[in-house]
Amino acid sequence: MTLLAVGSMAIDSVKTPYGKRDESIGGSATYFSISASFFTKVSLVAVIGADFPERELEFLESRDIDLSGVEKKEGETFRWKGEYHEDMNIAHTLDTQLNVFENFKPEIPKTFKDVDYLFLANIDPDLQLSVLEQINSPKLVACDTMNFWIEGKNDSLMKIVSLIDILIINDAELCSLAKEKNLLTAAKKIIKLGPSTLVVKRGEFGAMLFHDEEIFAVPAFPVENVIDPTGAGDTFAGGFMGFLTLNGMNANNLRNAVIYGTVMASFNVESLSYDCLKTLDKNNISERYQKFSRLLHYDKIQV
Amino acid sequence: MTLLAVGSMAIDSVKTPYGKRDESIGGSATYFSISASFFTKVSLVAVIGADFPERELEFLESRDIDLSGVEKKEGETFRWKGEYHEDMNIAHTLDTQLNVFENFKPEIPKTFKDVDYLFLANIDPDLQLSVLEQINSPKLVACDTMNFWIEGKNDSLMKIVSLIDILIINDAELCSLAKEKNLLTAAKKIIKLGPSTLVVKRGEFGAMLFHDEEIFAVPAFPVENVIDPTGAGDTFAGGFMGFLTLNGMNANNLRNAVIYGTVMASFNVESLSYDCLKTLDKNNISERYQKFSRLLHYDKIQV
Repeated sequence: MTLLAVGSMAIDSVKTPYGKRDESIGGSATYFSISASFFTKVSLVAVIGADFPERELEFLESRDIDLSGVEKKEGETFRWKGEYHEDMNIAHTLDTQLNVFENFKPEIPKTFKDVDYLFLANIDPDLQLSVLEQINSPKLVACDTMNFWIEGKNDSLMKIVSLIDILIINDAELCSLAKEKNLLTAAKKIIKLGPSTLVVKRGEFGAMLFHDEEIFAVPAFPVENVIDPTGAGDTFAGGFMGFLTLNGMNANNLRNAVIYGTVMASFNVESLSYDCLKTLDKNNISERYQKFSRLLHYDKIQV
Repeated sequence: MTLLAVGSMAIDSVKTPYGKRDESIGGSATYFSISASFFTKVSLVAVIGADFPERELEFLESRDIDLSGVEKKEGETFRWKGEYHEDMNIAHTLDTQLNVFENFKPEIPKTFKDVDYLFLANIDPDLQLSVLEQINSPKLVACDTMNFWIEGKNDSLMKIVSLIDILIINDAELCSLAKEKNLLTAAKKIIKLGPSTLVVKRGEFGAMLFHDEEIFAVPAFPVENVIDPTGAGDTFAGGFMGFLTLNGMNANNLRNAVIYGTVMASFNVESLSYDCLKTLDKNNISERYQKFSRLLHYDKIQV
């Protein structure tokens, strides 16, 4: 099976209570594809400027990520500057420069049009729709979004939600999208609009899965040294979709995909940018999955 | 095995976005003992005023709760008035009247001194210490506390923490007690001070258990109609301690105790005061435990 990701590649400046870096590499599609690459081959469609460091492209290629859909344009790469205060669940955006991303019109190379699994990272829902139109007959389409589009492009977003299989979204955004205060009520409402599956990211509080009238929920993997949560949601989505692409979609695979997503995100927050993912190998992932399984395990006792 | 709870019985006035009631029955020991009574026989030591409704005492007795340690005094019962806004994790206290609780000096009746399991609900740590001195040789002592005592009676609280087996506390209070920002770091620090086991209540985000260098974590049971979270933490502790008293303490029982605590708390939030617990039976608990088990279940897939 093949996995295609469409989204942003960025140069970030990030400051957290535990670290600071200017000109670090970020972007939803970057985090997603590195994370997914531990499970499956990933193809990437995105746009970068002339200033995107060559060594980072080399790293992505070393992870067997197909960059033939990454367009290099004159001008600067999309830039995000943000900081986190004590509550690391909240990113405070200080500056956003769209740069070459402003006129991003994703064109899917011919070789990618028959992809099986498609992930539409958090970009303008009109662009997500245009990508969907270019793919022949994907087996599974997942999509992420954010408040900016929920408020600013609600009609287009609702259309994309009605066309996809899996919506991956954080808890506050889900409630905002569904115009509901209760997470469970919001989830039921969104499931009715089209997606068979809903994955709710809850940051340090874990994740929930809604599928086939069943719910699955896990806490986050507890991490002592949270350095930088940037990209954690995309890293989660990468592990989730990577695992599904490798194993196919069924109820138990979806549940394991949530766990692998959680495991991948737990590595990502332990360093600035994606430093931690750079030195990771399959054994680390396997070990943490085992450790997480022990944390979740109990033998049932009925009273 | 026998379980003794020492704490407050109160008359509350509560307003939430979904309901409002003046003169409803509350108090940490009340919620705790009703919840625990579904698992084991409970004895209660507390103080009430002449205004405490007779019918509520009759209800507690109908749950086989031994009230011979509940002192009835001239004057009014302890009163708490509070409200919850949209974020129901935070209680806003509008008024507290200690009344007969002001001079509460818990005296443990002779018949209770040989109790096996002891729960010290959230009261002045000096009173918790005085209770501990009156019990002969308890097999297991658990204790709850709150920020008020962490800030105001830190020395006494630290002493009680060093003497007990299980500390049951919420996440923010744990961090405050340990003077640490990270929950995991805070947990490790507190475990070193004495308790073999730490249970961290995280409200709508579930609970964590630290025991014998292992961690167990569960999300909350998702509830669509959260009416009133008052007493949820004490109801959790009641289910937790009730299950342990019934089954004894070992690693797997502790994990199941966390789950039963979570199940009991999920019922409690579905109504004002403890209305929901009043109509509950063992089958309801068993069914929700099964439902929760399905929500937590997955078959491991190693990549």
